[in-house]
Amino acid sequence: MAQSRPIFYVSDGTGITAETIGHSLLTQFTGTDFATDRLPFVDSPDRARAAAAEIRASGVAHGVRPIVINTCVDPELKGLLAESGALILDVFEPFIAPLEAELGQQRESRVGQAHGMADFDTYHRRINAMNYALTHDDGISINYDEADVILVAVSRAGKTPTCVYLALHYGVRAANYPLTEEDLEHDRLPERLRAHRAKLFALTIDPVRLHQIRQERRPDSRYAKLETCKREVAAAESLFRAERIPVLSTTHTSIEEIASKVMTTLDIHRDMF
Amino acid sequence: MAQSRPIFYVSDGTGITAETIGHSLLTQFTGTDFATDRLPFVDSPDRARAAAAEIRASGVAHGVRPIVINTCVDPELKGLLAESGALILDVFEPFIAPLEAELGQQRESRVGQAHGMADFDTYHRRINAMNYALTHDDGISINYDEADVILVAVSRAGKTPTCVYLALHYGVRAANYPLTEEDLEHDRLPERLRAHRAKLFALTIDPVRLHQIRQERRPDSRYAKLETCKREVAAAESLFRAERIPVLSTTHTSIEEIASKVMTTLDIHRDMF
Repeated sequence: MAQSRPIFYVSDGTGITAETIGHSLLTQFTGTDFATDRLPFVDSPDRARAAAAEIRASGVAHGVRPIVINTCVDPELKGLLAESGALILDVFEPFIAPLEAELGQQRESRVGQAHGMADFDTYHRRINAMNYALTHDDGISINYDEADVILVAVSRAGKTPTCVYLALHYGVRAANYPLTEEDLEHDRLPERLRAHRAKLFALTIDPVRLHQIRQERRPDSRYAKLETCKREVAAAESLFRAERIPVLSTTHTSIEEIASKVMTTLDIHRDMF
Repeated sequence: MAQSRPIFYVSDGTGITAETIGHSLLTQFTGTDFATDRLPFVDSPDRARAAAAEIRASGVAHGVRPIVINTCVDPELKGLLAESGALILDVFEPFIAPLEAELGQQRESRVGQAHGMADFDTYHRRINAMNYALTHDDGISINYDEADVILVAVSRAGKTPTCVYLALHYGVRAANYPLTEEDLEHDRLPERLRAHRAKLFALTIDPVRLHQIRQERRPDSRYAKLETCKREVAAAESLFRAERIPVLSTTHTSIEEIASKVMTTLDIHRDMF
């Protein structure tokens, strides 16, 4: 059996940028088994020395050279990390010179700023969007006027995680509406949703998958029965067609993909937090 | 006034990797005003041509060459994007050759895989962690046995967003415990928390900031009064010291930073979703 290759995400901040690009790179090498770890807040020579020692020790323990995905920008810290003997991939390095040339400007290398504290207003927008998502999660007595998007689906099709993701990462006010038995029987949307047609986005899901998910939540209930799931999904899809609501299946779709498709479809433009 | 520089995050998937590294790069160039947009799911020649046309038009409209942060890996799509005339920064390109050499393996360039659907078990772990965070958000009648971490703080200090973030991105089961008047008066933790000492992490916050946040929520209430905030924060900090719980101030700290510090401090190791 091949030994696993140690990977370290090293950063002077949270390490999120390093881990995001590192993860994207590693998914392109499926033949290797990776043992990943993050070393965030490496923002002083002492911490860089400690990180280098830990990386070096990991290489000895695994019997193979570690790989470091690094976003530290300080040259002194980078020099200390190099003493680990690892292959160091510097995430920002290749892009700085072309950006400086194009923008006619030198970069400023403040430490750990990418996922640092935003200004008070930005923070508030984010938290308020999240509170909105959490308090508009049941479809009951909700005022949809303030919503940027209203996700419509049967129970357990992926509405809540998507709403929370949209709020947390884009400050999008995402409400959701769980379709009731009554909506499904009448094959039409409730009146208070019809006033917000441009904000509606529907989720659907494979009934077998829905059955699995509901089964985990309420084992052997009528709610979780495959028959119930099939009937609800068929009725919901018919309603979405009749009302011409854009619809996406969440069966093989990640939360990130759903969120991205919702924003693209409804033409919502927001910077990522 | 300088015109703003158009930036496009182009991807065959969600565009999250492109935007994450792009945002980190742009924060290093504070002198320029950027107009950012994302073009996700560019996964066919037609979409690449449409993207190139949109980018070119944006350059004409802004009167300045656009910059593309690209994570498309298909050479044909990359060739079509180049026809936009933009400066194209390819996020993966600089790291592929050194990784291939180090791993002794060619990369496989499947399209849009980084934030795609994970396997069913991984998805479930994520969703279950999120449901856990949402249903363990009030400190009432909670069984903390299943928790990976329990955040302890006064109301509105940042517990809920941190719990949701930890669940959504790391599958960490994060519960929270809002300190009651009674806890603060008695300067000690409730018995049921003391059994989980190793999982406890405390948040504190500047009282003036807390006052601003509470004021938005319940204007001119006793709860929001600066006096109340000062008293609660002082009592909470005294309790954290007495109980020797690790504590972090959220006043100038982003949700990402709090989450990262919590995991580092409690030695929780999880890959990012």
